[in-house]
Amino acid sequence: MEKNRIEAFSDGVIAVAITLMVIELKPPALSGGFENLAALTPSFLAYVLSFIYVGIYWNNHHHLLSIVRKIDGAVLWANLHLLFWLTLFPFSTAWVSQQSLAVAPAATYGVNLLMAALAYYALQWTLVRAQGPQSVLKAALGHDWKGRASPAAYVVGIAAAFYKPWAADLVYAGVALIWLIPDQRIERRSMSVTPS
Amino acid sequence: MEKNRIEAFSDGVIAVAITLMVIELKPPALSGGFENLAALTPSFLAYVLSFIYVGIYWNNHHHLLSIVRKIDGAVLWANLHLLFWLTLFPFSTAWVSQQSLAVAPAATYGVNLLMAALAYYALQWTLVRAQGPQSVLKAALGHDWKGRASPAAYVVGIAAAFYKPWAADLVYAGVALIWLIPDQRIERRSMSVTPS
Amino acid sequence: MEKNRIEAFSDGVIAVAITLMVIELKPPALSGGFENLAALTPSFLAYVLSFIYVGIYWNNHHHLLSIVRKIDGAVLWANLHLLFWLTLFPFSTAWVSQQSLAVAPAATYGVNLLMAALAYYALQWTLVRAQGPQSVLKAALGHDWKGRASPAAYVVGIAAAFYKPWAADLVYAGVALIWLIPDQRIERRSMSVTPS
Amino acid sequence: MEKNRIEAFSDGVIAVAITLMVIELKPPALSGGFENLAALTPSFLAYVLSFIYVGIYWNNHHHLLSIVRKIDGAVLWANLHLLFWLTLFPFSTAWVSQQSLAVAPAATYGVNLLMAALAYYALQWTLVRAQGPQSVLKAALGHDWKGRASPAAYVVGIAAAFYKPWAADLVYAGVALIWLIPDQRIERRSMSVTPS
Repeated sequence: MEKNRIEAFSDGVIAVAITLMVIELKPPALSGGFENLAALTPSFLAYVLSFIYVGIYWNNHHHLLSIVRKIDGAVLWANLHLLFWLTLFPFSTAWVSQQSLAVAPAATYGVNLLMAALAYYALQWTLVRAQGPQSVLKAALGHDWKGRASPAAYVVGIAAAFYKPWAADLVYAGVALIWLIPDQRIERRSMSVTPS
Repeated sequence: MEKNRIEAFSDGVIAVAITLMVIELKPPALSGGFENLAALTPSFLAYVLSFIYVGIYWNNHHHLLSIVRKIDGAVLWANLHLLFWLTLFPFSTAWVSQQSLAVAPAATYGVNLLMAALAYYALQWTLVRAQGPQSVLKAALGHDWKGRASPAAYVVGIAAAFYKPWAADLVYAGVALIWLIPDQRIERRSMSVTPS
Repeated sequence: MEKNRIEAFSDGVIAVAITLMVIELKPPALSGGFENLAALTPSFLAYVLSFIYVGIYWNNHHHLLSIVRKIDGAVLWANLHLLFWLTLFPFSTAWVSQQSLAVAPAATYGVNLLMAALAYYALQWTLVRAQGPQSVLKAALGHDWKGRASPAAYVVGIAAAFYKPWAADLVYAGVALIWLIPDQRIERRSMSVTPS
Repeated sequence: MEKNRIEAFSDGVIAVAITLMVIELKPPALSGGFENLAALTPSFLAYVLSFIYVGIYWNNHHHLLSIVRKIDGAVLWANLHLLFWLTLFPFSTAWVSQQSLAVAPAATYGVNLLMAALAYYALQWTLVRAQGPQSVLKAALGHDWKGRASPAAYVVGIAAAFYKPWAADLVYAGVALIWLIPDQRIERRSMSVTPS
């Protein structure tokens, strides 16, 4: 019950965040030609990437909470902290959309990814603590190489943004791809993939 | 349980997408006369059509998941893929609203409809695979002429957009009407209408 | 179960519609003085009124579905039809906010109220039909004077808008007040108030 | 059941309100440099503070309803009244963001906080009345010094805004911090923190 409502609220916030990004995809106001659609390509790609990332977070959040039994006050705040960084994606996506090859938006987008990853990590940690030492969750999170590698990759991406913003974008897209590839070992155990 | 949360998140995204479209219906800022309301007619009709389409998708999604027992990782991603195309309706609706008789928006709207229909088809396919060979779902999807005819009609509409944009709009409206007409056979079996 | 999801989707759409109206309350961009707050008064009052109306609809919808047992395809569409008119409140509220004493917005707001009331009536009717002849719902809806009087009052308001827009606003506010006053008889039976 | 739907609707409205605030964080449209990010700092801080406040309300609302058994019509309206003030945070946050050191927005933000706190207090009161005299809720709310001190602090903040707007902002941030500090006594009883 307790868990149901934290899931419902998280679903709500993530659903609004993932959908709100589309209002940055503005149709070319004064023209009905395809050349304007081409000009929207960077915005569209940014939207696709952010949609995938927020989708990955929803998927992982869904799996994570599905093997959790106990929620405490620290979990509520760690969850809100994660949601905070997810709600910033409409902002950082909008900036990348408008200035797709500039340094500051590319680095800022990476910082958003990094902070969301760290917030997810903190949420896991508070959940493990709330479950107690022998929990299924702790065992499930044991071999999470994706969760550990992603923040490092985001730091590389942020650094790359200062030299070649497009290289940063490639790094961010690459990490998203790694998360999309299903993880055989985890499916076999029919268990939650872990986190970003 | 697993199913509940995928439904809740889908409900959230679809609810935001269907409601967000209304912010493209901008009141005439500097006037309080009815002549401006007349100028809003194309926007209003585009809103009505998109509301009906997103409503059809919600109805079909609702029926589809109601006869499903198992969810796996592929289903989660196929569902997010469908939601992605549904969240683009505010964008394509806004463009059609602003340039109601231009080629590119009319064709783009059709591409949005087509991609959503194909995404729905892919979701059905992953759901059937997840249920196993003898599932109720597979039997239920057997005679789905609407689901098969719709993508073909959207392709016709997209082609028509290059000659007469209003003809494309008629095709899109016609397909929506076909989906609104209740399907006796399916009601009798008290089963899900099928897709897209 | 079937009912749960129609409630969840309706809650989502109504929650987005009721909250989206606030983005029409734009802070005075270039000033930090109270004189601009005074200029926002008509917008604020329009927001309050629409919030109350959408809140009344949520309350009534909540009560109505709580005594319902069966849902069919017609109910799904009647519900979507009601949600359609509720999602238009951000539009009609925005127009009234901007042109608070003009004829067309005052009349349009009334038409929105009227169409929502008729859509609610149609939803009740499809629900009664779906429950069958001996249902609790049918008995509960027997003495619904508010539901019957409201549409008539909206028509009066629409007509008044053509002479004195402020008179229309008074009528709309008056009907909202009547709905806010609790209905003793219905509380006693611990039953749903009915509709707008 | 009754309770589930009031929770679901509240979750929806709070989720939209908390996420909608981010659209006021507008990326610097014509530039890709970090100097514009610095200019966004007041907006960002206002967003963080409002996110925390709405998060506190969600947390408290969640706890409050979790120990409640009975809901009546007065509770529905008291809940909508609270939601009304929460939906105004996107407005008051936007104004503070744009005029961060001006008198009127700082005072208005405090009035929004004050009204939300009073609305929360009223919701508690109607819930206590609905539960009857011997309820767990009444006992749980006995020693709520935070709930009583907060409105007084907001009044101090509003008064301070007329002399030094930044002092008002400090007061508001300070109250938020007090709410973030976990309350040992309440955790020990595994009970709801209380309000506002």
